[in-house]
Amino acid sequence: MNVFGTKIPRKFYNIQSILEIPPPKGDNIKILPKIFPKEFLKQEMCKEKFVPIPKEVRKILSQYRPTPLVRATRLEKHLKLSENIQIFYKREDVSPTGSHKPNTAIMQAFLAMKEGFKRITTETGAGQWGSALSFACNKMGLDCTVYMVKCSYEQKPYRKILMKLFGAEILSSPSDRTMFGKKILQKIPDTSGSLGIAIAEAIEDAIRHEDTAYALGSVLNAVLMHQTIIGLEVKEQFREFGLYPDVMIGCIGGGSNFGGFALPFVEEAIKKKNTEFIAVEPTACASVTKGKYKYDYGDTAKQTPLIKMHTLGCDFIPPAIHAGGLRYHGIAPIISVLANKGIITTRIYNQNEIFEAGKIFTKTEGIVPAPETCHAIKATIDSALKAKENKEEKIIAVNFSGHGFFDLKGYQDFMEGKL
Amino acid sequence: MNVFGTKIPRKFYNIQSILEIPPPKGDNIKILPKIFPKEFLKQEMCKEKFVPIPKEVRKILSQYRPTPLVRATRLEKHLKLSENIQIFYKREDVSPTGSHKPNTAIMQAFLAMKEGFKRITTETGAGQWGSALSFACNKMGLDCTVYMVKCSYEQKPYRKILMKLFGAEILSSPSDRTMFGKKILQKIPDTSGSLGIAIAEAIEDAIRHEDTAYALGSVLNAVLMHQTIIGLEVKEQFREFGLYPDVMIGCIGGGSNFGGFALPFVEEAIKKKNTEFIAVEPTACASVTKGKYKYDYGDTAKQTPLIKMHTLGCDFIPPAIHAGGLRYHGIAPIISVLANKGIITTRIYNQNEIFEAGKIFTKTEGIVPAPETCHAIKATIDSALKAKENKEEKIIAVNFSGHGFFDLKGYQDFMEGKL
Repeated sequence: MNVFGTKIPRKFYNIQSILEIPPPKGDNIKILPKIFPKEFLKQEMCKEKFVPIPKEVRKILSQYRPTPLVRATRLEKHLKLSENIQIFYKREDVSPTGSHKPNTAIMQAFLAMKEGFKRITTETGAGQWGSALSFACNKMGLDCTVYMVKCSYEQKPYRKILMKLFGAEILSSPSDRTMFGKKILQKIPDTSGSLGIAIAEAIEDAIRHEDTAYALGSVLNAVLMHQTIIGLEVKEQFREFGLYPDVMIGCIGGGSNFGGFALPFVEEAIKKKNTEFIAVEPTACASVTKGKYKYDYGDTAKQTPLIKMHTLGCDFIPPAIHAGGLRYHGIAPIISVLANKGIITTRIYNQNEIFEAGKIFTKTEGIVPAPETCHAIKATIDSALKAKENKEEKIIAVNFSGHGFFDLKGYQDFMEGKL
Repeated sequence: MNVFGTKIPRKFYNIQSILEIPPPKGDNIKILPKIFPKEFLKQEMCKEKFVPIPKEVRKILSQYRPTPLVRATRLEKHLKLSENIQIFYKREDVSPTGSHKPNTAIMQAFLAMKEGFKRITTETGAGQWGSALSFACNKMGLDCTVYMVKCSYEQKPYRKILMKLFGAEILSSPSDRTMFGKKILQKIPDTSGSLGIAIAEAIEDAIRHEDTAYALGSVLNAVLMHQTIIGLEVKEQFREFGLYPDVMIGCIGGGSNFGGFALPFVEEAIKKKNTEFIAVEPTACASVTKGKYKYDYGDTAKQTPLIKMHTLGCDFIPPAIHAGGLRYHGIAPIISVLANKGIITTRIYNQNEIFEAGKIFTKTEGIVPAPETCHAIKATIDSALKAKENKEEKIIAVNFSGHGFFDLKGYQDFMEGKL
């Protein structure tokens, strides 16, 4: 009952079928079965190429999927590109909460509900993940507690109200609800918080309550797999257009939107070298570009297992940039492996550059990108201009991970020269 | 290049082909050719049943149209309805600016551009219309000046930033840019403004600048005609479902979203009495339910021609309710005629009732309705419950005119018991 179309994928694509991902290690591995649904952990280690999407999940996904793949004709015109260079954007902003995040939130809430959990805790940076999980928990009849990074909690009051409308409980992190939150508040009372701290609080809360699961919005193998419905749709949509992407671009915080977008194209790219993958980071928190590849904790309290990834260090607290969703010290192990193999390359940009790109996109295409998405847009513009200079033919695809309706304060600060 | 589908209507439906609408009168008729494109005025008086949509306009519309018609299965479940009562909502919120308004904005900006105008002035209440016209002017390469009703200007800062991103100039109305604005500010310095005042300012500005057109977001026959692409799509979508609506519901401020939704169904309803039409107003500004049917001015400065409509009086300044788009003293002449003939009936609701309905909708369907749209949702819930009580079979269709991402402050006030 949805004219968006009915052809949404029936299975997730699993990159672990062709790529060896170092497993997590350390004593903390024992917490995993306490806070994650069993089926989720099975997916995390799974080597099958395709994993079925449950019917109940597909039904909810069909409320907004497949999302459109749109040619950016007016942006192309603005950049004075010839017909040889075409830009396409995948509109993940059309989901009910405005980003790609519900794709995995619905799946995770479904698995938790199936296994008898009553509540899910999580962290959120910009609020996109918190909104998505609040939405998903509400659909599955679960309670939801969201630890929201303090600087976003203060910058984005509307996100809080949205989550409350879905029935979730929202706490500014660090909070006094957890032992770790209290400790940080004592040590750095005026901290702007970080995703690492918020994750620590959400995990501590889940560990201490038997009926409570924990959900993570990115980083994990299973989360990136859930997001591959994006790339699988893009593949089908390009096939319908009779085209194939030469360049695929996305921003990376934990790596899930970029991963979901790009992973279904990786196998062919390894064989044929036909697609270039560009992952974009903020200069202020460039985990892959500036971080070290090593085993590190996923949270600041060192409660998680050790994860092999590019990391700025689990104690790193990035500056309070508007792209709250990109303020994570580490990156998905899958993205790290791809970066090490040279299959993906990274770009870094600062806040003024990315908001300028967002403004150009809004003026040309009419849709406001979230600050996170602006990073991908900036790299898209740069790639297109470079192809123009070099007189190359290029089909450039960018993942439009979310809209900026809740981030207009950031645009205002940018336009008023306050960044 | 849009998976939303390509079957958008090629022609507008014109209700004036079957319905006699009293023409405007009075000396001020002479201002019309100064501020409106000639082609627009021709459409305003047109009696043809179908009017072609220019190719350039269809191309921009296809960026977000056809919009989905979705069955509200979770709302139905929440209301414990049997399969005999089904609710469908038409998602006009998926447009780039979040409401049905771009449907006519694109058309009006196109006609102004074609006839050599360089700038368009307009008024806006909630900001939906101002955003839509800013978006459309930007697409057509025109400048745009928006007089925004003061209470919305203060309640909705994000809407202002969105319009600025599209390159528009935004003024709080009453402003000191116009003679009429200055007069009002002298008389009532702490006024919350009204659509009537903002219209007066926008018209005065357009009259005084030769290169400037004026655009109105509702009320006029041509505007309602542009919006009929909504109802034409709904008709086709119900045909695909093998269904036909027994009840059609929309909110009315000036009447354009309701008109665009319902008008293509009116001719058959007159013949077969197969569809009931319900138009919903806020108690605080119930033009049809409480107003008089007479010739009145469209603006507070009495610059417009006299228009035959239900009106609370052109001096009426409604309280600063959150549904800014419904704060208009009059109504479209087409809606008035339909009300007089008993073809449509009206309902009125107060702010707490409609926000409660909006909260229920958000929790069940996952999409936040704008406060204006909440009025239609409230009537939809009431209609469904009445049908349930009477054990009737009903297909209920509601126009989901816009999302409430910019109205969460209103929801917050409601949840905190401040309304």
